[in-house]
Amino acid sequence: MAQKTIYFGRFISTPQPVELLIRVGAVLVDRNDGKGVIEKADWTVRDPKDAISKFGVDAPVITTKENGFFFPGFIDSHIHASQYPNVGIFGKSTLLDWLTTYTFPLESSLGNPKSPMYKDAVEPPNPLARANAVYNRVVSRTLANGTTTASYYATIHVDATNLLADVAFAKGQRAYIGRVCMDQPETCPDYYRDESTEETIAKTKASIEHCKSLDPSGELLAHIITPRFAPSCLPETLSRLGALAQEQDLRVQTHISENLNEVKLVKQMFPDQATYTDVYDHHGLLTPRTILAHAVHLSKDEMKLIKEKKTKISHCPASNSALGSGFCPVRVMLDEGLEVGLGTDVSGGYSTSILDAVRNACMVSRHVGYVNGGDSRYNLGVAEGLWLATVGGAKVVGMEGRLGGFEEGMLWDVQEIVLGDVDSRGEGDNTEVDIFGWETWENRVDKWVWNGDDRNVRRVWVGGRLVHERR
Amino acid sequence: MAQKTIYFGRFISTPQPVELLIRVGAVLVDRNDGKGVIEKADWTVRDPKDAISKFGVDAPVITTKENGFFFPGFIDSHIHASQYPNVGIFGKSTLLDWLTTYTFPLESSLGNPKSPMYKDAVEPPNPLARANAVYNRVVSRTLANGTTTASYYATIHVDATNLLADVAFAKGQRAYIGRVCMDQPETCPDYYRDESTEETIAKTKASIEHCKSLDPSGELLAHIITPRFAPSCLPETLSRLGALAQEQDLRVQTHISENLNEVKLVKQMFPDQATYTDVYDHHGLLTPRTILAHAVHLSKDEMKLIKEKKTKISHCPASNSALGSGFCPVRVMLDEGLEVGLGTDVSGGYSTSILDAVRNACMVSRHVGYVNGGDSRYNLGVAEGLWLATVGGAKVVGMEGRLGGFEEGMLWDVQEIVLGDVDSRGEGDNTEVDIFGWETWENRVDKWVWNGDDRNVRRVWVGGRLVHERR
Repeated sequence: MAQKTIYFGRFISTPQPVELLIRVGAVLVDRNDGKGVIEKADWTVRDPKDAISKFGVDAPVITTKENGFFFPGFIDSHIHASQYPNVGIFGKSTLLDWLTTYTFPLESSLGNPKSPMYKDAVEPPNPLARANAVYNRVVSRTLANGTTTASYYATIHVDATNLLADVAFAKGQRAYIGRVCMDQPETCPDYYRDESTEETIAKTKASIEHCKSLDPSGELLAHIITPRFAPSCLPETLSRLGALAQEQDLRVQTHISENLNEVKLVKQMFPDQATYTDVYDHHGLLTPRTILAHAVHLSKDEMKLIKEKKTKISHCPASNSALGSGFCPVRVMLDEGLEVGLGTDVSGGYSTSILDAVRNACMVSRHVGYVNGGDSRYNLGVAEGLWLATVGGAKVVGMEGRLGGFEEGMLWDVQEIVLGDVDSRGEGDNTEVDIFGWETWENRVDKWVWNGDDRNVRRVWVGGRLVHERR
Repeated sequence: MAQKTIYFGRFISTPQPVELLIRVGAVLVDRNDGKGVIEKADWTVRDPKDAISKFGVDAPVITTKENGFFFPGFIDSHIHASQYPNVGIFGKSTLLDWLTTYTFPLESSLGNPKSPMYKDAVEPPNPLARANAVYNRVVSRTLANGTTTASYYATIHVDATNLLADVAFAKGQRAYIGRVCMDQPETCPDYYRDESTEETIAKTKASIEHCKSLDPSGELLAHIITPRFAPSCLPETLSRLGALAQEQDLRVQTHISENLNEVKLVKQMFPDQATYTDVYDHHGLLTPRTILAHAVHLSKDEMKLIKEKKTKISHCPASNSALGSGFCPVRVMLDEGLEVGLGTDVSGGYSTSILDAVRNACMVSRHVGYVNGGDSRYNLGVAEGLWLATVGGAKVVGMEGRLGGFEEGMLWDVQEIVLGDVDSRGEGDNTEVDIFGWETWENRVDKWVWNGDDRNVRRVWVGGRLVHERR
């Protein structure tokens, strides 16, 4: 039976981009079964016992460590679950050769025994067994890094995609599951594409149905329509996917304007549309529920159109740096009124950690400033990075006001952070975040952001359900 | 009594920038007391017992895990030990305001009870106790991250600087200890500077003597002459320090051309010298034993002069990105024949990990390529990054041929790396490096570089002495 729980201690969040809100108090969460929301919050409580009497409920109390705090769970608005085994494996490639050299072989190996990855295999390939290992691991690792919500790309394979849905649902992560759509023979290899628009639509529908069968409400798990990117889909497929998203009121995710050669390719392949953004708009894919990953090289006109359509952006700084894609001007997009969150973009990005994405977002923003004559207005600070990772991400996945903070009515998707204590002899805990004791709380958050990892994530809850506890 | 040891298993190193050398075999190390070198190496041995008979020595055998390897210890050619508590604390600052806002207050607090950091202190400040905690912790953390050699900046305080020497020597890290020289009233605060050239020289000599008293050979521990950077020293001080380095044949370390405003400041303060590099040359500080940190904005003429003088460069990519200093063109410097290693530059850099510096060096090189029209020739690969961290670093600290590899006669300054195993159900170890089993060894090294941390460093030796073992 679902049980109420009181959380007591230090709560840190970023209601506004430049505001690090640090409070001591208690909140009452109404259930611990994946549907739990904050029933009451009280920022005057200074003792766990007071919380019980204030809330009038004899519920168990979970307390942060003195050198720790509750923080909203991270939202990864762009991650390729199927690419997880390739994190760090990209050599000196850039987007288009990275896809053919590293990515299509791996993705295809989760469903196709004839994938080039199996060419030297001794035993008969078992793609679904591989998918099982990969998907279990990536969901565990993202949870361990504090990611409570993830918008996943799987592969073109229905069975493996449905398996990812099963795994995320069983582990309790809030997840949007995308079966990857790619059927354009000009750009997709024979061993890894759908044969026709009909096949693409039918397989997408099969995956939609599976997600609905697991969670009819779509609150914890839902399918997300996933045309890989414009060049990988037949134009008719793009239109049909747009129509399907509208029909069923589903989220959409795709890539846009990551790399200059990709932008050129789109221009060649879609000569009738003026811009990359127009291509998606023309095919009915520029919706308020659409997440566009990367958006490194958008023109001001494209930003304007995206804003009009209320379409969302997932900024993936680690990936953009690792693949040499360019510098995404997040400050400009925020100033234009666009809604932006963060993505790890595994495995274009090398890390499953959204905290790493916060760091890289801060660094990339300084690069944007540097190439604009040393203009520090482009800089993102730590609070802004954390805001993108939580409140910004909530807007991007259509959960604004329900995720990313500690206000009454919000879902209890939360991570408990614990930092390392250094004693007077210089002995400390086995983490990279060493707190000497004189640091302000603002500075402790700085230190967590720049050196924190999964060792600082003690527990993670989604909808009040405990979904990760550090070993 | 010093004892011989055999090391057996997988050995990975980077003898050339683009060569990842992966060997199985055994080496015999002649002593385990901090002076141990490789007496014999045999790359035909496939069994620990064979090693004993081949070497004709009944020594204990230390074997790598199947999913692990020995790798040369990292060389951090630029790290401010005194700034360690500030890792991650830099806000949106750039070099010059970062120094006055964050850095001088912290550094001064390790020696001066009137440091601004103590302004709200309740108890009487105890600077040396603080220095003790900070220095113990930073040496432990760098060792835990596989740094076997570090070129440290301490502070202006002789007692605290000598304490850093004591700590590094006791823990067995190979270390160059720099008492920071700064006596230019125009740029240094009253609370944190030497009063005159005489004081600077006298205090530097006191620290030199202390290092010599600990290690007369200078092999494991030595003083390094440390004018903070040209703007922080009186011109006479720069000349006297140059003379002192020559007299006593000591290493020198300083900063150069990190930030464009700094370059302007140097031009104003030293109008008679054409370039920043000329300033150091003019004062006798551009020696073959000098380490210049950053070198982001050097002209080709400056590179030529540095090459002529055989002066070394420490590339600090994390710091340059975090402080928005610019993109250091490492490929250009290597092509020009300069000798380059890596530095963490704690706390301009946020991490004590040279592996993190390898990652950031790779990313920054892609930025250099991107701003040069997408030219991938600028890219550094993983092997090149590791080469900079080991063989490159050995050249920079004047230990070429003695550190950075597994050839006979080289010092046993080595880290044992262990990666994480993922099983068929997707369960794995508690590290960020997940190996599924099908990866090549080249790919495993990629995965280590991009996601590895101190959890992957199982043991660390310096001169054959075990100086760190993971808890």
